[in-house]
Amino acid sequence: MKVNGTHYETIWFKDGDDSVVQVIDQRYLPFDFVIADLVSAEDAFQAIKNMQVRGAPLIGATAAMGMYLASLECINNKNPDNCLKEIALHLQSSRPTAINLAYAVNKVLQSVQKTNELNLKINSARETALDIINQERENCLNIGKYGLPIIERLSAANKEKPVNILTHCNAGWLACIDYGTATAPIYMAHDRGIDVHVWVDETRPRNQGSKLTAWELQQHGVPCTIITDNAGGHLMQHSMVDMVIVGCDRVSLNGDAANKIGTYLKALSADDNNIPFYVAAPSSSIDWSIDDGLTQIPMEERNKEEVMYIQGSRNGQLQEILITDPSSKISNYAFDVTPARLITGLITQKGICKPEKNSILELFPEKKRMT
Amino acid sequence: MKVNGTHYETIWFKDGDDSVVQVIDQRYLPFDFVIADLVSAEDAFQAIKNMQVRGAPLIGATAAMGMYLASLECINNKNPDNCLKEIALHLQSSRPTAINLAYAVNKVLQSVQKTNELNLKINSARETALDIINQERENCLNIGKYGLPIIERLSAANKEKPVNILTHCNAGWLACIDYGTATAPIYMAHDRGIDVHVWVDETRPRNQGSKLTAWELQQHGVPCTIITDNAGGHLMQHSMVDMVIVGCDRVSLNGDAANKIGTYLKALSADDNNIPFYVAAPSSSIDWSIDDGLTQIPMEERNKEEVMYIQGSRNGQLQEILITDPSSKISNYAFDVTPARLITGLITQKGICKPEKNSILELFPEKKRMT
Repeated sequence: MKVNGTHYETIWFKDGDDSVVQVIDQRYLPFDFVIADLVSAEDAFQAIKNMQVRGAPLIGATAAMGMYLASLECINNKNPDNCLKEIALHLQSSRPTAINLAYAVNKVLQSVQKTNELNLKINSARETALDIINQERENCLNIGKYGLPIIERLSAANKEKPVNILTHCNAGWLACIDYGTATAPIYMAHDRGIDVHVWVDETRPRNQGSKLTAWELQQHGVPCTIITDNAGGHLMQHSMVDMVIVGCDRVSLNGDAANKIGTYLKALSADDNNIPFYVAAPSSSIDWSIDDGLTQIPMEERNKEEVMYIQGSRNGQLQEILITDPSSKISNYAFDVTPARLITGLITQKGICKPEKNSILELFPEKKRMT
Repeated sequence: MKVNGTHYETIWFKDGDDSVVQVIDQRYLPFDFVIADLVSAEDAFQAIKNMQVRGAPLIGATAAMGMYLASLECINNKNPDNCLKEIALHLQSSRPTAINLAYAVNKVLQSVQKTNELNLKINSARETALDIINQERENCLNIGKYGLPIIERLSAANKEKPVNILTHCNAGWLACIDYGTATAPIYMAHDRGIDVHVWVDETRPRNQGSKLTAWELQQHGVPCTIITDNAGGHLMQHSMVDMVIVGCDRVSLNGDAANKIGTYLKALSADDNNIPFYVAAPSSSIDWSIDDGLTQIPMEERNKEEVMYIQGSRNGQLQEILITDPSSKISNYAFDVTPARLITGLITQKGICKPEKNSILELFPEKKRMT
């Protein structure tokens, strides 16, 4: 989507130099727009580990590009395949949870192992990494296409008023390659001239909403307003929200959706006020092996420093300050599970389905044998 | 309650010098424990305006003490009553919304107007201010007494485990004189040896939970854990919360409760998980003139800077940093209304009642003519 009027994606080859991968260093947003060069597999590892890049699809894409950079490094190694395998393991250890990470690394590794020709290995790594990126982009585009008619219908019903959409966390293009998942229908509606306005939950403790989602929507020209995580219920009570769209980290086969902590509270409020609540879910986020999200998706507790400290800008300099008593006990649960009964529909790259097994498998019949 | 092992209230006369009022300067909590001297009515005005003190009962108490300090100043004025009236108006303008403020100022003003003897005026102001303080203390104590059996019952049912209580914002002793409203039953249970643990909502945007509630509970030795506002639903889904107690800013006669933004979301979650949800409501918070909180209690929107900036500590110095893009649009609704249907009971200084007109008026029969 657009940044300062120019179209950007989150990861690309440096102009005229395919040995350098470039990414937006998201740690500086929304204060500074910094582009980082990744010139080695180690750079890709660090970019993921240090959260210069984040979001499951982008982590996968960066790791895949890291494997391509590894193929350039390993070509002079006595045993290129061993060299690549070692780097693959290293890249996989950069973040503990993202499922896309292992998938992307292994896909590139398998592709290079198919040939013994060194130059073909490099080509193969490059093409596979680009395939992964293209696939992620296309999934988001299709989620946008299927989600768009929901916004069009609300807009037609709303007449002169904008369609007010609430979202939580960042399931935007910054987490993907382009378009985003939850944001894809929003960008598409905006680009077609539909009057949309987005309520952006701040999303404590990491503030991905106020720092990333608001930034990317503003840059693309989509009207939006930051609110605290506490405010959404009040807005919904007063008819100031027409629909909710969120992303997800994992959806169980019964349609329960694990997403950023706090999503469940917004789903309860949407339900209490008869507001449609959609989850944008590419099939890569559906866990075909789990029947009950509430009991079977593990809870991740993250470190207390995320709540204790906050990063911001002071006199143009990024700073981190302490915002609690350092002796306070703090719990930092990162995700919660929204039960299927509170979800209006899952927007996938193959269409919209009800949050329940039969409806999901109708869109993905090839997965039936896996369940 | 206790601070560093010593019993404190939020406002008192300086030891041996009744011409100096002392308060805890809450702007520095939890990082520094600073006691401020108020030696003039203007000091009291500034303390309220600059939020050295906050919380409706404490604002009222500080304004009353400000009127007492005014009586010391006006004694040498040609027209002491006019002098006091002017200062009363000034004190009332220190904060726009707290109902206790006007009440306390007027009560002291009326008491001094009853006599023409200058020394009696001072005595009268002093006694009335202390009466207001004593009344606030007693209300909290009684809310504690009536709320305690709820915790005792949960503790008996829980056997070996602590009673896990979730609270939002600061309805603690720092907002009152002592005990607090929502916290009074908690302190009382703790002091009687009941094993309680409090989940403290951070309470964005002003973080009264993580900065004030956690501090006061810790100082008194009550086990507690700070969580983000997003986390409560998840904890309730996983049986990690036994009850919720919150304070309130205004309760309508049908039992709807206006309180800090985000309270409604916790009430929805408590309801969804069959967890009792109590509102601690001294009768001074009940609005006898309003029948429907959801439509009749006005929504206050506060300035966007509260969301844009955050205060914390860096290298031992208090600092404020910017945490959003300064060009972002921000809405900052300060309160929401929890519908009576989601509230298990109101804990008042006269006992517990259902959140509905007849039940409320049974506890306060003298208010029947007002409704």
